[in-house]
Amino acid sequence: MKKYSDMTREELLSEKEILEKKYAKKKALGLKLDISRGKPCPEQLALSLPMLDLINSETENFKAENGFDIRNYGAVEGIPECRRLFGEILDAPMENVIVTGNSSLNLFYDLIAHAVCHGLPGGNAPWSECKNRKLLCPAPGYDRHFAVGELFGFELITVPINSDGPDMDTVDELIKDPDVKGIICVPKYSNPQGISYSEKIVEHFADLSPAAADFRIFWDNAYVVHHLDFDGEKDEIPSLLRLAEKNGKGNMVYMLGSTSKITFPTAGLAAVASSEENIADFRRVLSFQNIGPDKINQMRHVLFFRNLEGVLKHMRKQSEIIRPKFETVLTVLKAKLSKAGIAEWNSPKGGYFVSAELLDGTAKRTVALCKEAGLVITGAGAVYPYGKDPRDSVLRIAPTFAPVSELPEAMEIFCISAKLAAIEKLLK
Amino acid sequence: MKKYSDMTREELLSEKEILEKKYAKKKALGLKLDISRGKPCPEQLALSLPMLDLINSETENFKAENGFDIRNYGAVEGIPECRRLFGEILDAPMENVIVTGNSSLNLFYDLIAHAVCHGLPGGNAPWSECKNRKLLCPAPGYDRHFAVGELFGFELITVPINSDGPDMDTVDELIKDPDVKGIICVPKYSNPQGISYSEKIVEHFADLSPAAADFRIFWDNAYVVHHLDFDGEKDEIPSLLRLAEKNGKGNMVYMLGSTSKITFPTAGLAAVASSEENIADFRRVLSFQNIGPDKINQMRHVLFFRNLEGVLKHMRKQSEIIRPKFETVLTVLKAKLSKAGIAEWNSPKGGYFVSAELLDGTAKRTVALCKEAGLVITGAGAVYPYGKDPRDSVLRIAPTFAPVSELPEAMEIFCISAKLAAIEKLLK
Repeated sequence: MKKYSDMTREELLSEKEILEKKYAKKKALGLKLDISRGKPCPEQLALSLPMLDLINSETENFKAENGFDIRNYGAVEGIPECRRLFGEILDAPMENVIVTGNSSLNLFYDLIAHAVCHGLPGGNAPWSECKNRKLLCPAPGYDRHFAVGELFGFELITVPINSDGPDMDTVDELIKDPDVKGIICVPKYSNPQGISYSEKIVEHFADLSPAAADFRIFWDNAYVVHHLDFDGEKDEIPSLLRLAEKNGKGNMVYMLGSTSKITFPTAGLAAVASSEENIADFRRVLSFQNIGPDKINQMRHVLFFRNLEGVLKHMRKQSEIIRPKFETVLTVLKAKLSKAGIAEWNSPKGGYFVSAELLDGTAKRTVALCKEAGLVITGAGAVYPYGKDPRDSVLRIAPTFAPVSELPEAMEIFCISAKLAAIEKLLK
Repeated sequence: MKKYSDMTREELLSEKEILEKKYAKKKALGLKLDISRGKPCPEQLALSLPMLDLINSETENFKAENGFDIRNYGAVEGIPECRRLFGEILDAPMENVIVTGNSSLNLFYDLIAHAVCHGLPGGNAPWSECKNRKLLCPAPGYDRHFAVGELFGFELITVPINSDGPDMDTVDELIKDPDVKGIICVPKYSNPQGISYSEKIVEHFADLSPAAADFRIFWDNAYVVHHLDFDGEKDEIPSLLRLAEKNGKGNMVYMLGSTSKITFPTAGLAAVASSEENIADFRRVLSFQNIGPDKINQMRHVLFFRNLEGVLKHMRKQSEIIRPKFETVLTVLKAKLSKAGIAEWNSPKGGYFVSAELLDGTAKRTVALCKEAGLVITGAGAVYPYGKDPRDSVLRIAPTFAPVSELPEAMEIFCISAKLAAIEKLLK
């Protein structure tokens, strides 16, 4: 088969006819499929159920290492044993870790709200007083990050991403603007491209010289232990905080992480690691906000995992559940899309997504066609600031939640839709 | 014995000598006592332990009423059965309730942050743009409420409290100022005085006519089911939200509550009830902040309590543990302080505190004397905005956490200290 770009108008019309028949057949099945959600599937969740048995009415000792009763008020920064666990996960000293909340998104939100309302160490005013405040957004990226930035009145500036991370020349240039207050990154198995930043890029980040004295790197390491093949190729990145501290720039960094996709989304834990000064500052604000996080849930996690090794053992089991799903997605993409030459996609070594780059100007149409045939996928543009993909080409596929049995059908619909959209475009 | 105010200088000096001997004896015991903390005691916490058994690895059904998997993302507003439970607790329709977080303090903080950053329905700008924004603070009150107001740049205006609630003439006058954006109340078994607002006062609140279109009543009903004697006198107050809705002023009200002092502080739940418009507005902001609260913990609470009746049964058991503590405090106060005529105190029917009003200008000195003799009590001034008690007279006693066996000794030290401070003052 020829690439679509090499086809004559007649060939395209004939291909279109074939595709339309296939599409009509799929549509007639009346399916209800969904590959939009970056959610763990029930089998993944079931792996964490034994955690719920570890603290119960028979438990004799409710004391944390520091003597705090985990059932009562206190320990705004989290219990020591849980700070240690997250210190291992995020690669930071436990003294520099606060464990709270249930998602890195929530911590990002709280940090941004804090910066906007009260200001951060190194700055001389709340960010609200910086009227033209800007947030750098490597994209494609996580729509909810962008949404938080927009909600708090930041201008969102797209930074292109290369195969080894954000384009650092662009970053260096943009941070000369003192109104640029921060950058939000998913440095490992990024959402949606599954890219991990190279060591060189991480080192570059650790030595940025922004014009704004209170510039911050929000380093959402949401997929830090989320490898797809524990016996195969895995990505590892250095600790941005440790590198930045060496450069005397620790205040520039907030490393975030959570167990949202390790144990239970929303019933898990989240943590931030940063410099001593930033941690003291954030702890102070948290102490106004509440009188301590859910320490019973922290202890459940500590008893369940013990340490990083325990976390990795657990994530290996998860990878065995979701790897076949990723393989199915990639197999169908290859079989059904590669010859037409209208799409490229990544083969991630971890994380939650496959990102497909379609022919320019066809992503929205593809989503609409999928929807009409009973397949829900994440809206086109979602992975860009303001929901606007400048080329209307990137779509995010989330393989984890759907049953593996549904994925071949879902992906076939996706491929037919993408091809139909491409031909429509080429025929225009 | 005479009242101190009726004593001659010689009589006071003689009484002082006696007290100093008693004080020296107590001090020599080297005690470490603490009546500063409004925390449940371990026996209270133990009552909730069976809740931890209700969801475990044997649980077969993790679906909430609305079909959401409680282990996964979603349901930003909480699961329906838990919204219903809090609807009963706070006396509001379940559709008007959001369940999240772990404390009403945290919800108050989040609402204030939201108002300051983004503005509220009815307003035309974020509160940050109101440069002279003010918050009315009925006082004596809860120090952490005042601290949040101060952190977010409000001028705190003290409103006097009478035996039936805040002085409403003062409130009516102050809200003519469009910079007055809100008032923070603990309407039932208030912290620290144990006062419950009368029906008339609640009705008055429900029909306020503030100058600011986005004025809000933050109604922290933290002790809504916290009676001390379930077979005796109990306070009940009407639902402010229902009354305000009747007046078409539902947007003026956020009713807050939590299970912090019902199940486990920090491992409990919190809820806000408000008008349809406010709830939609707050839900929208929450949906930026996270992808749902801890629904497993919500379901634990639902299974444990079922309904308001279950909550009340549970709180009756708690009252049996803490009522003797309150009785001890009141007995010692009466026996040791009443004749001297230097103090007044309340006999609360619920809540967590006894509030003592000492001779003007002696509260700080009393705290210092207590400390020197090994007794920690909440700092003088803490119950007033900016930590400044204009008369230096109110102290807060928290009887719940200390073992009942320690309370007589603690209260004797308190009474000796208060009397010594009073005599020192009178001799000046």
